[in-house]
Amino acid sequence: MVSFTVFRGSKEGKIVESTTTRNIGPDEVLIKVTHSGLCGTDEHYKHADMVLGHEGAGVIEEVGASVKSYRKGDSVGWGYQHNSCGHCKQCLTGHETLCAERAMFGYANLDQGSFAHYGVWKADYIFAIPDSIPREFAAPLMCGGATVFNALKLAKATDRVGVIGVGGLGHLAIQFAAKMGCEVVVFSSTDSKKDEAMKLGATEFIATKGVSELAVSRPVDQLLVTTSVQPDWKQFLPIMAPGSTIFPLTVSQDDLTIPYMPILAGELNIQGSLVAARQVQRDMLAFAAHHQIKPIIEQFPMTQQGITDSMERLQAGKMRYRGVLVV
Amino acid sequence: MVSFTVFRGSKEGKIVESTTTRNIGPDEVLIKVTHSGLCGTDEHYKHADMVLGHEGAGVIEEVGASVKSYRKGDSVGWGYQHNSCGHCKQCLTGHETLCAERAMFGYANLDQGSFAHYGVWKADYIFAIPDSIPREFAAPLMCGGATVFNALKLAKATDRVGVIGVGGLGHLAIQFAAKMGCEVVVFSSTDSKKDEAMKLGATEFIATKGVSELAVSRPVDQLLVTTSVQPDWKQFLPIMAPGSTIFPLTVSQDDLTIPYMPILAGELNIQGSLVAARQVQRDMLAFAAHHQIKPIIEQFPMTQQGITDSMERLQAGKMRYRGVLVV
Repeated sequence: MVSFTVFRGSKEGKIVESTTTRNIGPDEVLIKVTHSGLCGTDEHYKHADMVLGHEGAGVIEEVGASVKSYRKGDSVGWGYQHNSCGHCKQCLTGHETLCAERAMFGYANLDQGSFAHYGVWKADYIFAIPDSIPREFAAPLMCGGATVFNALKLAKATDRVGVIGVGGLGHLAIQFAAKMGCEVVVFSSTDSKKDEAMKLGATEFIATKGVSELAVSRPVDQLLVTTSVQPDWKQFLPIMAPGSTIFPLTVSQDDLTIPYMPILAGELNIQGSLVAARQVQRDMLAFAAHHQIKPIIEQFPMTQQGITDSMERLQAGKMRYRGVLVV
Repeated sequence: MVSFTVFRGSKEGKIVESTTTRNIGPDEVLIKVTHSGLCGTDEHYKHADMVLGHEGAGVIEEVGASVKSYRKGDSVGWGYQHNSCGHCKQCLTGHETLCAERAMFGYANLDQGSFAHYGVWKADYIFAIPDSIPREFAAPLMCGGATVFNALKLAKATDRVGVIGVGGLGHLAIQFAAKMGCEVVVFSSTDSKKDEAMKLGATEFIATKGVSELAVSRPVDQLLVTTSVQPDWKQFLPIMAPGSTIFPLTVSQDDLTIPYMPILAGELNIQGSLVAARQVQRDMLAFAAHHQIKPIIEQFPMTQQGITDSMERLQAGKMRYRGVLVV
């Protein structure tokens, strides 16, 4: 039995410190949290009575009796992947994030998350963090990095990749796509993030606000939508190459409303995409380590106040570009 | 120089008989039309001053000086594929129906079509009709067959394929998918076409009118929408398997408006799809010949009156299932 501090949402949206008590099962590990990324999804769940956070990084403190793949002291991370059933079609074909039995984006256990001092997780659903990635940089890769890498996993080096939005996801998407060898076209409302986008690897930068025709030099083959609201689809369809793919990564309760005939005539593809399945997550971490891809972060203490401050900054659109809570 | 009878649309939507005069270029062939399928798209263009018809079948009467692949007397068909540039990225990668230089669904020449007694076409953009497919059955495969086969070309034999609508396209989609080894779930507004759908190869048939929850035995991996108007998307999203694909084949001037989060959460794929590129068209014809897949047709004479009658029957939703005009 182990008891530890966790931080929950609440009906009023206030962050609440409380305590969770857990057994460590034979196939589980106890992780001492050192860092957690802050994701827009935490904002969406802050009114729920559940422990927040799904971009965890920490050190293994204890392993269950049957765990062979990790040892005390290992540097590990975890995200949304846990709680797959292991025996459905999706699980058996490497798409376990689509497991029919997973609850609520993987939050089957609402009493644990990465906004915490410790966590107990199944060893098969955590990830070894490569030595060359400090944990404060690894944490935001667990969801933000995984989400954009999952969309990019089939991109060819000769593709032109469009990225709408330079934020927690977008600034990682630019780096991944550039290191995959792709030309990267970045779309942002104004020029304010242009220099940073170019430094991260963008080939081309287009300010979109009030622009009726986007002046791209050539159409894009993949378009990752990383903004917090859906874009003006009419503005973006003309820059899609024939047979190209749109990845809407925005979380949105609105319908998708998009001009129809251009999708048929261009054989465009709208591909829903979530966080990465486990093997894709491993590939992402290896790729990030190989290319020294790191998020740009702002650090806050893992306290009720620190979480509240970081969420306010994110909400105000001021985070550059991913908040990380430090225990 | 050759002159021949053609049938055009007109501003008032009346079918007009007229005459076209053409040279036969060195890379072209003169085809005596024997049959033409009637497609919903002809209805959309009947108010345009252009020759209608893009499901042609006929016999080669004369070949240009440099044509090596066809001889006088060959049985050939043609559809929408002509007028690709041959040198853009799409043309060079076997996606010539997406060629950037093609005009208006391939109708670069508005003075020719398959509602005619003859046609002059580039030899590289027509198709040999296998001996075992009589031309009255081959004609509707040129667009209707090509359109559904193009959507099905990546289906696995173990996929469950949903087909919405039993009409010109749908009744061919059922046959192709069944012969590919797939389970086929057919959706139609009422039970009136159930027996025929089952005979064509359907595994399961669901009447959709007034039904709030579609009682499929298992979700589908591919969904072909072949109705003349967009379906109620809210009704169909719950039957889509995780990671499955929707092919909207309906021609529609409305926006696509569809619930958004289910697309993300299920990693659903909305894939725009047109007629087949040439190699896919060849594969389709070979597959149809091998499995003796045939459209169910109603025949009309290739005259101003015959065309008018057939279009009225199609428009009234009475065609079972593809109209064929016979010269």
